[in-house]
Amino acid sequence: MLTSLVILLNQLQWNNSSMADKLKNIVVIGGGTGTFTVLSGLKKYPHNLTAIVSMADDGGSTGRLRDELGVLPPGDIRQCLVALSEADLSLRKLFNYRFESGNLKGYSFGNLFISAFEKITGDINKALIDISNVLKIKGKVLPVTLDKVQLKAKLENGVELNGENEINNSWLLSKFGIKKLFLNPRPKANPKAIQSILDADIIIIGPGNIYCSIVPNFLIRGIPEAIKKSKAIKIYNCNLMTKHGHTDRFSVYDFVNVIEQYLGSRIFDYITFNAKKPSSALLTKYSSEGEWVEFNKKISDDKRFVGADLVSSIFYCQNPADELKRTLIRHDSDKLAKTIISLLK
Amino acid sequence: MLTSLVILLNQLQWNNSSMADKLKNIVVIGGGTGTFTVLSGLKKYPHNLTAIVSMADDGGSTGRLRDELGVLPPGDIRQCLVALSEADLSLRKLFNYRFESGNLKGYSFGNLFISAFEKITGDINKALIDISNVLKIKGKVLPVTLDKVQLKAKLENGVELNGENEINNSWLLSKFGIKKLFLNPRPKANPKAIQSILDADIIIIGPGNIYCSIVPNFLIRGIPEAIKKSKAIKIYNCNLMTKHGHTDRFSVYDFVNVIEQYLGSRIFDYITFNAKKPSSALLTKYSSEGEWVEFNKKISDDKRFVGADLVSSIFYCQNPADELKRTLIRHDSDKLAKTIISLLK
Repeated sequence: MLTSLVILLNQLQWNNSSMADKLKNIVVIGGGTGTFTVLSGLKKYPHNLTAIVSMADDGGSTGRLRDELGVLPPGDIRQCLVALSEADLSLRKLFNYRFESGNLKGYSFGNLFISAFEKITGDINKALIDISNVLKIKGKVLPVTLDKVQLKAKLENGVELNGENEINNSWLLSKFGIKKLFLNPRPKANPKAIQSILDADIIIIGPGNIYCSIVPNFLIRGIPEAIKKSKAIKIYNCNLMTKHGHTDRFSVYDFVNVIEQYLGSRIFDYITFNAKKPSSALLTKYSSEGEWVEFNKKISDDKRFVGADLVSSIFYCQNPADELKRTLIRHDSDKLAKTIISLLK
Repeated sequence: MLTSLVILLNQLQWNNSSMADKLKNIVVIGGGTGTFTVLSGLKKYPHNLTAIVSMADDGGSTGRLRDELGVLPPGDIRQCLVALSEADLSLRKLFNYRFESGNLKGYSFGNLFISAFEKITGDINKALIDISNVLKIKGKVLPVTLDKVQLKAKLENGVELNGENEINNSWLLSKFGIKKLFLNPRPKANPKAIQSILDADIIIIGPGNIYCSIVPNFLIRGIPEAIKKSKAIKIYNCNLMTKHGHTDRFSVYDFVNVIEQYLGSRIFDYITFNAKKPSSALLTKYSSEGEWVEFNKKISDDKRFVGADLVSSIFYCQNPADELKRTLIRHDSDKLAKTIISLLK
């Protein structure tokens, strides 16, 4: 009820603006909780949303389903579907439900739903159309590739890490440095994802784990080229926090640099970053995971960088039943969406 | 498309009849493939359908879910939901999909769906309302009881069989005779099921495995009493075939007698039975499972008994992935529904 009212107010506000008749094609590229947050905020605006989702996940119940059923990894797709769903709360809860006992322990119901539908249709794109109808999705969710892939990292010290899950849990990335992050075999892009990028008015990347959720999308043949070619306004939402072992001591600049490096050029029109330091109590609680991402004065002179208070005031508990590691300090989906939308005017 | 046309034609035909403005409350009591067939046929008529489903099933993936998650047995509910669903074919297929490999092997997706929804809502009646919306159910599906039960059989030789699955697979029932079939603990009825029976214009029982799908419904406190009290026209659809070890040499009369015995009195207004013997080739193929149910001349003098050609001309393959035992010789859902509807005029 309250959510509907907020949506209504947002839409009324929007209808009064000069852009009411110019709906934009917004493409969000990523995977994981960060993308969930961006989509949850943006769906309250009347634009056409498309989420393009990394297919590198191989941990938890997603990894088990990949191995056991030979399906594409459903976990990141599920999160985007739930973010964009306008179905009843109970159905959205069902999609995030994890079985808690017996043989099924740890399996996410939504992951089973997506995988079973993929098995029946033999085509994830087709399955996603049907699932989107069931979940009353506002927008579209597209896997970045239809090929089965494995993420690998070669470190500067010669060590090779295999699989997104192993890379995600490794503390060695920032210690030794990444020589090469790659997908094996190198996949080609989902043609629908390429088309959406080319048709986009706005492309949004991040927040999210850069090596495990963001960059894997750019390792797909055709994706960086399409992003470069697209005339869309390109926005990167910088992470709020570093991740120990991955992005230690990264500033806002460092995040942008790494991502633009994988994209092959300086492509972002805007970078949003959080300018409000969380409380020291919260930072202490978080300190085993990472530190606040600092920004320096140079940023104020660069019009690409847009600082705002973007932190959620809700304290997120980590759910032990949930195998994905969730951050305790998160973006506020409404603040982030408002900041993004303000850049389009 | 063709199905829609058949439904439309049936409805047009119906609208022309004198009963067009008198929609009936039809209650179908049972579980298993027989109930699926009755519902599939009747849903093409514009009446209000309610399926009341046995909760004694404990075999296959249903049994595993009962044990592992502590839920009510979802298998029979699923079959009724699929029968009454007017959702896209792909969604109905999804509900009947069984995982074929890995840890999930043998689990029916529909059973997982129902069980996960029951876990989330904590209330199967509430869950079924939500699931019915997703599956676009024409009608209602109600568990006969919300209590957890186990079916038991005490044979005349003293042997006790525990669980529907053990009873279903036993060959001893007709050899030694059943002294007592009972549920432990003796459950009370789902109040919604009682109300539907009392509000019914027509109550339909069978076809189906009498000791495992039909009679367990009558072992629930309040159900036989409500059936007796109800002013509905009561119809029993006799099985086409006997089941070795259960109903050897049963005639149409014997089926009716056993069922009326468990209901406590002679209650059926009509009994439909198949008057057309299947081909000997088909009977030979079926002979390891059972024999054709014979009827004798006495029946022609008793107006309760209505014989017709009720056999499906489709040859059903047994699906090895499907743990429920399916009969090869089945009722034709359209012929059966037409016969039932003709009795109401």
